[in-house]
Parts: sequence; structure tokens; C-alpha cells
Amino acid sequence: MEKGVSVAVLTVSTRSSAGLREDTSGPAVCALVEQKLGKVVRYAVVTDAVEAIRGELLKACDELKADVVFTLGGTGLAPTDVTPEATASVIERPVPGISETLRAKSLEKTKTAMLSRGIAGVRGTSLVVNMPGSEKAVRESFEIVLPVLEHAVELIHGRVKDCGRSNA
Amino acid sequence: MEKGVSVAVLTVSTRSSAGLREDTSGPAVCALVEQKLGKVVRYAVVTDAVEAIRGELLKACDELKADVVFTLGGTGLAPTDVTPEATASVIERPVPGISETLRAKSLEKTKTAMLSRGIAGVRGTSLVVNMPGSEKAVRESFEIVLPVLEHAVELIHGRVKDCGRSNA
Amino acid sequence: MEKGVSVAVLTVSTRSSAGLREDTSGPAVCALVEQKLGKVVRYAVVTDAVEAIRGELLKACDELKADVVFTLGGTGLAPTDVTPEATASVIERPVPGISETLRAKSLEKTKTAMLSRGIAGVRGTSLVVNMPGSEKAVRESFEIVLPVLEHAVELIHGRVKDCGRSNA
Repeated sequence: MEKGVSVAVLTVSTRSSAGLREDTSGPAVCALVEQKLGKVVRYAVVTDAVEAIRGELLKACDELKADVVFTLGGTGLAPTDVTPEATASVIERPVPGISETLRAKSLEKTKTAMLSRGIAGVRGTSLVVNMPGSEKAVRESFEIVLPVLEHAVELIHGRVKDCGRSNA
Repeated sequence: MEKGVSVAVLTVSTRSSAGLREDTSGPAVCALVEQKLGKVVRYAVVTDAVEAIRGELLKACDELKADVVFTLGGTGLAPTDVTPEATASVIERPVPGISETLRAKSLEKTKTAMLSRGIAGVRGTSLVVNMPGSEKAVRESFEIVLPVLEHAVELIHGRVKDCGRSNA
Repeated sequence: MEKGVSVAVLTVSTRSSAGLREDTSGPAVCALVEQKLGKVVRYAVVTDAVEAIRGELLKACDELKADVVFTLGGTGLAPTDVTPEATASVIERPVPGISETLRAKSLEKTKTAMLSRGIAGVRGTSLVVNMPGSEKAVRESFEIVLPVLEHAVELIHGRVKDCGRSNA
């Protein structure tokens, strides 16, 4: 499976959703996916509201059965930042190490990384990963998780028969 | 906003609460707050019991509307250590990166840091942060979170209009 | 208390449980325990199913009252990997720092460590620690947690009177 991963990209931003700010993060991740990982099967911009985010996550996981779902934004401390809560309400098995690693790596560059509340987890055969919202941050986050994504997808689909030698 | 953060400091220790041990950690944090961050609006010493801790947290968050609430102690593995459980029962949005960072930084100095069970999160407009109990540990913890606290408070109060360039 | 810790070792692997693959991880940890930590009071191989894992955890914690319970395997992303879910259903107080540290240290060697979903926590007087499944990974994980285990057990049993100088 080379570059065969199907990906949904979900920008969470009330301002971008209302056309008040151009979403540069979503297109940046879409381009990175097409270049390095696979195929973008869904790109949407949604408002900062649990039900709206949740609806898009369910669509990406259950209808489109995307292998990977990236959310961009809504992970901070502002009252409107509820992406982690929406994500927690749909994932079946948490994968805390992805978010721990995103924060730890980001923390080497900027102390505010410790305020990012992103989570990650599996729903069905989809891996959902919350990323911060800025284009710079999503580019960095993408590169951090990229090396493990194809293996993660293989595992989730039960296509790895024996992980006796894996460290996961 | 310089040094304008309102802070509640809550020492959790049955022994200090009963007057059997002087609480040096609480006064140390209070002094650091006044010197570097803002104003102490509440300092209390409470027993290691979920309801007692919970009551003080609700008072600090809902009545006093403290911007930041530091708890000191009760985060270890002793049967009486229940500060994280009391905290989890009041916070609305977890901020896992703060506790991950406190542990990771502390781990560079002492391996027992991995046993600290502290959590952090937002309730209303208050950021609650569990710290370990020793004076040395609270001093170190304070310095680790200090650089992001004013920004965190601004975000929680919705006073940052556009965090498109933030990494949180 | 030297080498006085009682330990249960639980290998979680449907293949090993069915005799389709030799369990080398379990015996490796048992040997390390006897050599460096204490006494193995239970070693079992169980299938990748929540109820089966849960049953063994309850036996180790509530009946055998093992000081430490190591689970090996079932922490990845495969559909059958449910050790963290079984563990979460029995622990009373989470100890997130142990799993964060296991992943962070392992991540220095292999990027797939970020996919390990292991958790840790206390039930009664037992500390349960999820480890990955491979022999190499469990050997590394054991060495990482070893330095804090005796202290952890002392704390859990309430045998440390004053942890004012501890960083936990």
C-alpha cells in the first residue's frame, strides 16, 4: 500500500466557515496528503460547535470510511474550542500517544503547545487526529504523524497478522 | 494585562489542615504569584478528601471566579491522594498538555515524577492546575507553567480574537 | 522491603493463548521480576477479549492482591487490541505518567511507540501497568518503570507517612 491512504480533512473554524477568514490550513494539509500519503476523500470547513463537528466526523468515519481523519483547529482554550469534546464523543478507542507526541514535539519550539487540548482515537476503521489550527502548526503536526500513518491504517484494518515484533 | 491574573491557591494535606505540619508550599506559591503573575484571591488548606477539595474548587471557580486555581498535593499514589479525582469531577474541558509537560520536565530531575497523577482543565473561566505537594516541586511546577498562564487566561476569557497564528 | 514486591504477569495474545505462538514475553518479564523486583505470584496467557482480560485483572488485584500487575500486549490499533479498555474498566485511580513515560522513552527508539495505547492505574492495593507485547518492548518497558516500582508499592500501601519531600 503506497500512498493509498484515504483521508478526510476537516477545518474547524467559525470564521473560516462564515467566509470571514480564508482557510489556508485545510488546503495545506490536503496538498501534503496528496503528495505524501494518499487521497483526500473529503475536505470541509465547519463551525466551532460540537454537533457540527460531530456530524462531519461521523460522516467521514461511518459513511466515507476514511482511513484517517484530520481535524484542524478548535483545540485551544477559547470558549468556542470544542473539537476535542466532539472527537471524544465519537472515538471508540483512544490513542493518547499521538497527541502526547504532537504536543511534546511542538513544545520544543513553542511553550503554548502545552495548551493544545487535541486528542486522537479510532472509530471503526478510521483514525481521527486532532491538530492545532494554524497552517504552520498543521504542517508540523502532519510531518510528525506521517511516519506512522500507513502502519496505523494497516493495523486498524487488521491487515498486520502478527505484531509480536512491533513496539505498539 | 500585566500581573493581572487572579489566583486561588489550595494546599491539599490532611496533616497541614490539622496543624500537624506547617504548609510551606502554599505560602511559597502565593509569594511567587504576587511577584510574577498577579493577585492571590484565596489561599486555603484542605484535608485529603474528595468532597472537601471539590468544595474549595467550586468556590474558587464559581464564586471567586479565579483566573487560575493551583492545587498543591494529593496527586500521588497514597490511598488518601484524591486531588485528581476531585479535580476531574469539576473541570469541563481537560487540558492534558499542562500535566504532561509538568511530568516530563520534572522527570528530567526525578524518576518518581512519573507517579504524579495531576491533571489540569478549565471550568467556566478558571484554569485548574494540579501540582505536586512538596515546596521544591511546586516551585519548579510554577516556573514551568508560568510562561503560558497569561495567554491561557486571555484565551479562556475569549479575549483573543484570532488564534490562527497560535500553536495551541 | 528488598525484592519483596509481588507481581502478576498477564500476557494478552489470542495466538499465544491458543498455542499458535510461543509466549516469550511473559517468561522474560517473570525472569526479570524474580531477578530484580520480587516474586511472581501469577503468570497467565489470556485471549484478546475484554471480559477475559478483565477477569484475570480482577483475580490478580482482588484475590491475589498482587502489588504490581503487568499486562503484555493488546495495546495497539488492531481491532482485537482491547487491553487498555479492559484495564480502564477495573482501575480506580489512573496513573497517566507511567504510560506517558513508557511511550516517550520508547519513542526515542521507534516512532511506532506513539501508537501504543497502554494505560496504568491503581485498583485497591495493586498497580496495573499495560506494556506492549513484543519481548524487546517489554524488556525495555520493565527497565523504565523498575526504578519507581518499590516506592509506588510503598505509597499505595500507605506505608509512606509523609511525602512532603516527594515529587509525586
